[in-house]
Amino acid sequence: MRITSETVADGIREQLFTIGDIPGVLWTPAEGSGPRPLVLIGHGGGSHKKGWEVVSRAFPYVTSCGFAVAAIDAPGTGDRPEHPEIRRLVALTQEREAAGEPFWSGPEWPALNETVAAQLIPDWQTTLDALRKLDSVGDSRPVGYYGLSQGGEMGIRLVAAEPRITAAVLGLVGSDWLTETAARVTIPVEFVLQWDDEGSPRDSVMKLFDALGSAEKTLHANPGSHFRVPSFEIDSSIRFFARHLGGPGTASGS
Amino acid sequence: MRITSETVADGIREQLFTIGDIPGVLWTPAEGSGPRPLVLIGHGGGSHKKGWEVVSRAFPYVTSCGFAVAAIDAPGTGDRPEHPEIRRLVALTQEREAAGEPFWSGPEWPALNETVAAQLIPDWQTTLDALRKLDSVGDSRPVGYYGLSQGGEMGIRLVAAEPRITAAVLGLVGSDWLTETAARVTIPVEFVLQWDDEGSPRDSVMKLFDALGSAEKTLHANPGSHFRVPSFEIDSSIRFFARHLGGPGTASGS
Repeated sequence: MRITSETVADGIREQLFTIGDIPGVLWTPAEGSGPRPLVLIGHGGGSHKKGWEVVSRAFPYVTSCGFAVAAIDAPGTGDRPEHPEIRRLVALTQEREAAGEPFWSGPEWPALNETVAAQLIPDWQTTLDALRKLDSVGDSRPVGYYGLSQGGEMGIRLVAAEPRITAAVLGLVGSDWLTETAARVTIPVEFVLQWDDEGSPRDSVMKLFDALGSAEKTLHANPGSHFRVPSFEIDSSIRFFARHLGGPGTASGS
Repeated sequence: MRITSETVADGIREQLFTIGDIPGVLWTPAEGSGPRPLVLIGHGGGSHKKGWEVVSRAFPYVTSCGFAVAAIDAPGTGDRPEHPEIRRLVALTQEREAAGEPFWSGPEWPALNETVAAQLIPDWQTTLDALRKLDSVGDSRPVGYYGLSQGGEMGIRLVAAEPRITAAVLGLVGSDWLTETAARVTIPVEFVLQWDDEGSPRDSVMKLFDALGSAEKTLHANPGSHFRVPSFEIDSSIRFFARHLGGPGTASGS
């Protein structure tokens, strides 16, 4: 793991890093040290590790909860190199949408998700290994995951595969190929649904919520389209993680 | 309005009252005075103004938010006299349930709700008039309503009729005869659904959520049967009311 830049602003330390060819970012409280809970944030499709949907969650998680928060670029995004196969599959979904069909209705959509996941899930696990060796994260405190849309699709796969993650906020995803994977998720989950989401139809999202194997799972549905998740859901996720991951830790000064 | 008893325990003042023949209870912070937001809590079917589902919400609303909280007995419950017609209709639903049919599947179920509402909605409005004349409540601060199950059925009717109520937590109700009434509700609503609720089937509750005319409405669905609403939903309702009703007021010492 190589730290490539470090800046401090508004009480938050931002460290850009690479782990092999994985580009990532770690946010921690500027003050304080020692082990603390970690939240991994998976960005949405077409976004990257510092997209608005990542930063708008990461900053309050650090400042309100004293958590460490990390994000990495998915294959073909942010500081990653071009990924020809992903580019080809994205172009096919865009052509389908331009022709007036739902972008998710062709075979290239599951193929795209499969291609991203094949690289991203192992990369998240490698990242988690490395982060937990840092003094500012440690390996003694719980780990959470937050991801909606493509971040939700990848999150269900990651959480099902990764026992170190013990609480997750997921949603805006209704992929029917994830049903069996969702059944293997047993940790507490807050699942987000947008009532008028053209990209993730309501019924499909509810089916995936229903499929989750978790004893504690809560569905939060709000009116509006895919990108209109209300800001009070950010507050709700803060309280969800505070409840399940606990405080920043006794060694912390924050 | 006549205060019939007053006790103080654990920082909460409890005042039993009658307004004409309406028996009610008001909880306020033991310390502090002056106007404050008010939350009305509607109890569930077969319960009363001091049922566990009322008190478990009322106490944290007072202690965490400094709110005033009030509940009244529905017709035929608590300190109200026997109500022969309600007793007859309840008996019919119980006979239906004993015969293995859903208790809500016969004509006596809407008739029962109609009979309760015909008295309870005006009684709530009379109660609100009286409470807002008290120094400890006042008429300058917002009013919220909390009610699930029968308290949700009555709440949709009350909120649609009563413009002084500006935020509501409702749910565990899917009555199809409430669709048009729900469409007249335009205030922020948190709507609670139990995923495995035999008494209020999931699809019917979602239809009523869909029918609400509110621009801000949020559905919280959790696994389990009718009575298994998780305790974190109480915390969620505290934050919902704190967001929409504000603090206890500048004149308050709490």
